[in-house]
Formats: sequence, C-alpha cells, structure tokens
Amino acid sequence: MFDARLFRESAESVTAQLEHQLADASIRGLELIDPDILDRAARGLMTPERDRIAAFDEKRLAAIVDLYVRTGIQVHSPGYLGRQFSGVVPLAGIVDFVGSVVNQPSSFYEAGQLPNVAERIMAEELNRFIGWEPESFAMVTTSGGSLANLTALLAARNKRFPDYWSQGGGALAGRSRPAIAVGADVHYSVSRAAGVMGIGDEQLVRLPLDREQRICLDRARGALEDAERRGLEVFCLVASAGTTSVGAFDPIDGLADLAREKGLWLHVDGAHGASLLVSDELRGKLAGIAKADSLTWDAHKMMFVPAPCTLLFYRDRRDAPGAFRQQASYVFDDKPDAYTALDSGDKNFECTKRPMIMPLWALWSIHGRALFAEKIEYLCRLTADIHTILLDEPDFEPLHRPEANILCFRHLPAGLAESDVHRLQLDIRNRLKRQGNFFISKVDIDGVAALRVVLMNHRITTEHFRMLLGEIRRAGYDLRHRANGRETGSDSE
Amino acid sequence: MFDARLFRESAESVTAQLEHQLADASIRGLELIDPDILDRAARGLMTPERDRIAAFDEKRLAAIVDLYVRTGIQVHSPGYLGRQFSGVVPLAGIVDFVGSVVNQPSSFYEAGQLPNVAERIMAEELNRFIGWEPESFAMVTTSGGSLANLTALLAARNKRFPDYWSQGGGALAGRSRPAIAVGADVHYSVSRAAGVMGIGDEQLVRLPLDREQRICLDRARGALEDAERRGLEVFCLVASAGTTSVGAFDPIDGLADLAREKGLWLHVDGAHGASLLVSDELRGKLAGIAKADSLTWDAHKMMFVPAPCTLLFYRDRRDAPGAFRQQASYVFDDKPDAYTALDSGDKNFECTKRPMIMPLWALWSIHGRALFAEKIEYLCRLTADIHTILLDEPDFEPLHRPEANILCFRHLPAGLAESDVHRLQLDIRNRLKRQGNFFISKVDIDGVAALRVVLMNHRITTEHFRMLLGEIRRAGYDLRHRANGRETGSDSE
Repeated sequence: MFDARLFRESAESVTAQLEHQLADASIRGLELIDPDILDRAARGLMTPERDRIAAFDEKRLAAIVDLYVRTGIQVHSPGYLGRQFSGVVPLAGIVDFVGSVVNQPSSFYEAGQLPNVAERIMAEELNRFIGWEPESFAMVTTSGGSLANLTALLAARNKRFPDYWSQGGGALAGRSRPAIAVGADVHYSVSRAAGVMGIGDEQLVRLPLDREQRICLDRARGALEDAERRGLEVFCLVASAGTTSVGAFDPIDGLADLAREKGLWLHVDGAHGASLLVSDELRGKLAGIAKADSLTWDAHKMMFVPAPCTLLFYRDRRDAPGAFRQQASYVFDDKPDAYTALDSGDKNFECTKRPMIMPLWALWSIHGRALFAEKIEYLCRLTADIHTILLDEPDFEPLHRPEANILCFRHLPAGLAESDVHRLQLDIRNRLKRQGNFFISKVDIDGVAALRVVLMNHRITTEHFRMLLGEIRRAGYDLRHRANGRETGSDSE
Repeated sequence: MFDARLFRESAESVTAQLEHQLADASIRGLELIDPDILDRAARGLMTPERDRIAAFDEKRLAAIVDLYVRTGIQVHSPGYLGRQFSGVVPLAGIVDFVGSVVNQPSSFYEAGQLPNVAERIMAEELNRFIGWEPESFAMVTTSGGSLANLTALLAARNKRFPDYWSQGGGALAGRSRPAIAVGADVHYSVSRAAGVMGIGDEQLVRLPLDREQRICLDRARGALEDAERRGLEVFCLVASAGTTSVGAFDPIDGLADLAREKGLWLHVDGAHGASLLVSDELRGKLAGIAKADSLTWDAHKMMFVPAPCTLLFYRDRRDAPGAFRQQASYVFDDKPDAYTALDSGDKNFECTKRPMIMPLWALWSIHGRALFAEKIEYLCRLTADIHTILLDEPDFEPLHRPEANILCFRHLPAGLAESDVHRLQLDIRNRLKRQGNFFISKVDIDGVAALRVVLMNHRITTEHFRMLLGEIRRAGYDLRHRANGRETGSDSE
C-alpha cells in the first residue's frame, strides 16, 4: 500500500481518467441517479474480503474513479450553470493533490511551514485590493464561509461583551439582549451563527432591502433604532457582497458610516463577491470595504480553487485572537517566537486545518492576478449579456439587473396563470436536472420560485445560454400541454 | 490553463516528485526554517507579471512543489513520531486528488451523488463496530474533530433547552445555568465549544482523573452532584477516547450508566481513538460505546486519510438535525424525496463541504477493514514495546502505561535537579526539532513538560525508537555540559 512506484502508476492512471474528463467539452449538467441504484453500484465495487488485506486492484480503482467522476456535477462543462462552486483551475487541483499526500496541517508553523508563509504572502497580496494598513491587518484561513462568518461574529461578540466567553450568555440577562443586524436576504450561515453562539436567531434584526435586494441605507438607521427601542443591543452589522440568491452587493460605504456612528462591528460576508476586488473594473462593487472590521472571502468560489479555501480578514489584527480564548499546552506555546508568531491555531476554529492556501498561492505565483481578474470579468460581462438577452424575450422575465455573475429569472409563457408561476419554475428546474444537459438552480424570491444561473465557467457563451432558454421553453411546453406534465421533483423517471 | 493535456503532463511531473518523496526511507523529521528566509524563497518563486496572465512555467511549478514537500513534516519517514496526523495511505491521496479536480461539495445529494452514498455505506460499515440499531442511528461528515464536537454539543444543548436556538442563552437566566461535564484533560476544542456556544467556559465541570489520566468513575458522581449544588444544570458529559496528551480512554461504560441515571447526553470524543473500534483486539478500549449518544471519529488520524475527514455519529438519528435549525430555500427542499433524503446540509455546519468520505471509502473498498485494523494493531503494540524499553532505561521515565499509540516520558539523567526537569524536556524537544532527524512533540503533565511520541507510521520500529533515545541523551548531555547549552526554543541556530 505504501509502495512508491505503485503510487505513481495509480496516480498516472487516475490522471488519465481526469484528463479525459477535462477534455470532454460536451454540454452536460448532471446524470441524476436514484440513490438506491447508485448504492448498489457502489457496493458492487467493494472488496468482499473481510479478514485479510485485499490486494490492490487497479480495475477496482478505475471503476471507483469512473463512477465518482461520472456521477458528479460536470463543473467543467458549459452545461453547468447551477451553483457557486467552480470548475477549478486544474493546476489548483494538482497542488491540492500534493497537500493530500504530504498531509501538513497548517494551524501551526512547524507543521506546515510553507502554507503558513504562503498565507502571509497571500494576505498581503489581497490586502492591496482591500486597502488596510499592511502592518496592522490580519488574515486567517478557515474551512468554509460559514465558519468564517461564525468566527468573525464571535470576535465581535467577545469584543463587545468581554465576559461572554467565560460566563456565557446567561450572565448578561437583565443587562443586555445582544443582537445582530443583517440584510433580510443574508446567507443562512449568519442566522445559523446566531443560533450557535447563544445569541438566538430571534435576535436578528433584519434590515429592509431595496428593489435590487440590497440593504436599503435610508431605512437601515430606523430599523436599528427601532431594535434599540425594543431593548436589543445590536453589536454587529453584517453586509453581504453579494447575496447568495441574486448576487446583490449591500452599500458597504454607507453602512460602514452608520456602523461607526452606532459603534457596531461591520462584518462583510464576501464569500461570493469579495473576489471582485482583484478586478480593476469590478472593485467598485465593494466600495468602502476598507472601513469594514472583517471580511469573509471564499477563494473556492470565484478564485477557482478546490473547496474549502476561505480567507477571513480583520482590519485590526488585535481582534483576530478575540474569537477564541483558550490555552492548550501541547499546541499553543507560552511565548511567541519567530516560528510560533505565524501559528493560527489561536485564531481559527480548527485544530487540524488543511493547508488550503497552497492551491491559491500556487496559481497566483504561476499565473498572476490577471488569471483571476480576467476570468471574473468575463463571467460578469457574460451575465450582463444574458440579462440583455432575457429582456428581449417576451416569455422570460429577469428579476434583477445582475451585479456579478448570478442572475435569477422566470419563464412566463403566454397564458400562464399567476397561481401557476411558482410550480412551473420548480417543475422546469427538476425536469432540466433530470434531462441532464443543463444544471441550474432555483431560489425563492418573495415567496415565488425562480430559476437561477451562476456563471462560474468561462467556457460558457451566450450561445449556450440561448440553448438553455430553448430547453426551458420545451420543458415548459411539455409540462403544460402533455400528459404527466406535472413533475413531482422527486420521482425517478 | 484549462488544457487537458497540459493538466496530465503537469500532474505526471508532480506525481514523480511525490514518488521520490514516498520512496525516501531516510530518517528525517523536519527541516525547520526561519520564516523570513522561507518567505524570501517563496516570493522568489512568484511571477513578477502584474498585468497579463503569465504563461505556465513548469519549472516554477516544480520548484513550488519541491519547496512544499521539503519543508513539511516528513510524515512518511520513520523520523516522524510527533503528532496525530498521519502519513496517509498514498492511494487515499490519489482519490482525494479526484475530489480536488471534479470539486463536488457533498452537503447535498445532487451536488455529490457518490460521496453521499459512500457516506451512507461507511456509516453502516463502521456502525457494525459501534453496535447501534442500523435503522435508527445517523452519521454526518464534517471538517474536523473540533467542529464535530461543537455540533454534538449543540445537538445536546438544543435538546435539553429547546428555546436556546431561537431565544439565546439570556432567556434561561434565573431558571438555569447550563453546564457541560468533561474530564480534566479534555481536548481544548470542547472547552472552546463552551465559549463559542454561549455556555461559557467557566461552566465546564471538570471531573477528576485517576492515575492513568482517565475520568475517575468513583469521583465523577460526587463532582456532578457538587455542580448541581452550585446551581449548575449539567446537560452533557463528554468522555475522551483517548485523550490528546496521553491517549487515555475514559471508562465509557460506567460513564454511560451515570449519564443515563442523571439524564445527561453522553458525547464521546473519539477523534483519536475511535478507530480502535475496527480492531477485534483493541475494540474493548471503547467498551460501552453503544450506550453513548454521539461519537466524534477522525478518520484523518488513525484511518490514515488526508485531513479533514471527521465522522460524527448519533445513536438516535432524530437528534442529528437538532444541532441546527434553519431554513434556506435555495438549498433545503421543503419536502424530502428519495434524493434530498440523503442531504446533510441541515445536519452539518458547512454549506460547501468537501467530499471527504471518498478517500476513506475507496481505501475500505479496495483493501478492506484489515488494512486499518492491522496498521492500528501494529502501532499500539509498538507503543507497548517502547514503553517496556523505557522501563529498562534508568535515565528515562514513562509517565503512563500506553493505552493506544501515544506515550509520554521524561529524560531524567543522573544528577538532574528537580527544578530543571521542565526546562530540560523543552530544550531537548526544541533541539531535536532543529536537528531535523526526529520530530516529536511535548506536553505539560501536572505542570511539568514531558516528551511525547505519537506513533502513526508503521515503518517505525523499536530500533528507530532506540536511536531517538540516543539522540535525546546526546542532546541532554550537550545542553547540560556544553557552552550555549540552554535552548531558547526560538533562536535560529
């Protein structure tokens, strides 16, 4: 099992399978399989040997990899327009492979020296687009945007309520009801964080949105003051850049002024949209970011590296250790020195943390910033173009002007009753998913379903989008005019 | 950047570098480098191109990978005896590579079909050694043992205090002071979880340990009742299997009876030791596990797969969604169907989650259970053997009888003053780390430093351990008898 030559032979076989996958430019979304059927196929690939170590079987490995690749969402195909995870730059996958073999956790410098140094370098590179003082900001990597949001909110909570960590939320009772202000369309990880942290998700103050689904600056102050009157002590305001459902960018600059005036920590959830900072064209979407206190940035979304690779930035590095207060002799050294100064274990939730920065740093080192900027700019331009296409189609309605690479729309064929709009969108989405050519997603907007595309793949063109519209029309027609038209969204076909 | 053939060529070059690394059987621990020197080396590998996409440069990639591999802890060398992360089975790294390229998050069935099915299969396979009802237990994967412990504690908290999620900890004030009982040597992630969750880390009830560093069953009841008298409402008891510092296994069977009697949720942190369940020889260390409510199991430790791969088991599947209560239309379907029934997004913290089960399932499928059982048994036997060796050495003192593959000991050369014991162990550890032949760790036991080995690599033999003892003796001699003897633990040499 540990033979180096066998390792190379197996890796080369698997690489050839992946090459074949990457070379396939056909339009395909997802081959949706009934779980029980897939279950039987998977069990059929398992050695029956129970008592001895079964010998390596290259055919078994090839079959496992084939099933794995074939049944996944085809993120490198132009048929994939569905979600925020990316068709990674293949080179990033190769660098991640090194990490999978040499297995160096990166919460401590001595355990992963280069990943820790690479984190420092990438922090500096990316902060040039944020604009904080190079000497006084901080960045830690962590396992996903949800964990980054939780970490930032903990830092904010512990700063405002210094005894919360040791004494818990009960100790505040009678003195304060801590609360967090969010946009009404904030990602579920933020409301989840309120539940996790002991704040209570009922203590979320939901700020009203404008027509573009951004926090409405004019009404935010009133909502905050109303919360105060209800006895809530808002300590943190979370802005999104952009939102998950439609990719809306909250007005950071104005919100930062409001937050400063009210003494609130401003956290920006830029899981999806922070990557726009690396583009000279698009950076303006996050205007005011230098006034925020913290920023979540998922590189596994629009920086096109394997998940997870989340970067959590703090304007003031002294805030970073505030999220967690802890001592553990076997990991945290008493006195920082040149080596332990780079440790992040006191600033990130994980003890064992994947060296997730490496694929990002390697791409950045080899191809430079322009790789990211150009791809992001293409995807955002493409989304603007398909918005224009939709405006010209009488049976389609875009639901917003796209700010980035997310667009929601509905198919509204002539004669469709208002009451059938919701169901038709869901049925179309499910039918497309099962047909397997295009993979798109759905979202509820004001309680009514909509179709949603997220353009993460630069191989997609407007022509592919026109093909998608054709498929949606056919699906809509079939669903309304043929027998068995109604999709259940769940039956296997 | 997306050329399939270039991908294959690059992957093959990197594979050859990794083959060379795996084939190197020399004894080496870590080449510790001053961060500023490494920083300069890393920056030297970055393209100076700022405005255009720099062309692929295979030499740059090779140099990055070389630096990455060379500066890591050498987990596949017999010189690595330091920590709980493993020299992975290389095949597991190859399967992880597939995941890095096809990039299928696994919180939702449709996004990662095979990973979700593989989770169900591995849950069933491993539960045969836990012994819960096949129809009614549950398992979710999550990003590390710390997150699994937090998740289980949230499920326990929300079950006892149903309004905690929505109303927060403040609403309980005056009625209850929630508390968590732990062994005095519990992993820092558990006390950290108490701080995160709003329980407050002062509301940890630390149960006294016996001489073997296990929770002392005879004194646990008294400690719990004492906590009740102090007005605490203990809702959860956390047992370790085994502890991080010495690998001690708390008496689960007796603690489960006590927990049941007192109405407490019993969570077992088996991040390190749960893997012993797959061995017929060693399973008894976790006797009583079927009476626990939840179990954390890090496959990236003693199942030898890349980090993170953590499995969180619940005896009662109905408890699993209780950790998080949430709605999000774009991910959680209203009505479960055959597909969405496998979704884990409502049961794990992450939204985007790596398909971490795949390397484990692939190893299990290709080589079977015996691969894991035999390697674990070898490592535990080896640890018993080195304990015996230490007992015969007058200038070494083992601090406990090893229960698994962790052993702590001190070097006590003749004439060493009691007051110098602590410093000498730290200095020896730092000197060894810098010499680079062996990588070991340190731990404080009763306030005094000790040396610690964790045997994760089956290539290690008792001969290697004797060499390590020789190196420790020489380091100790030098430190005591030569000029510049005192190590600072931080200066570069």
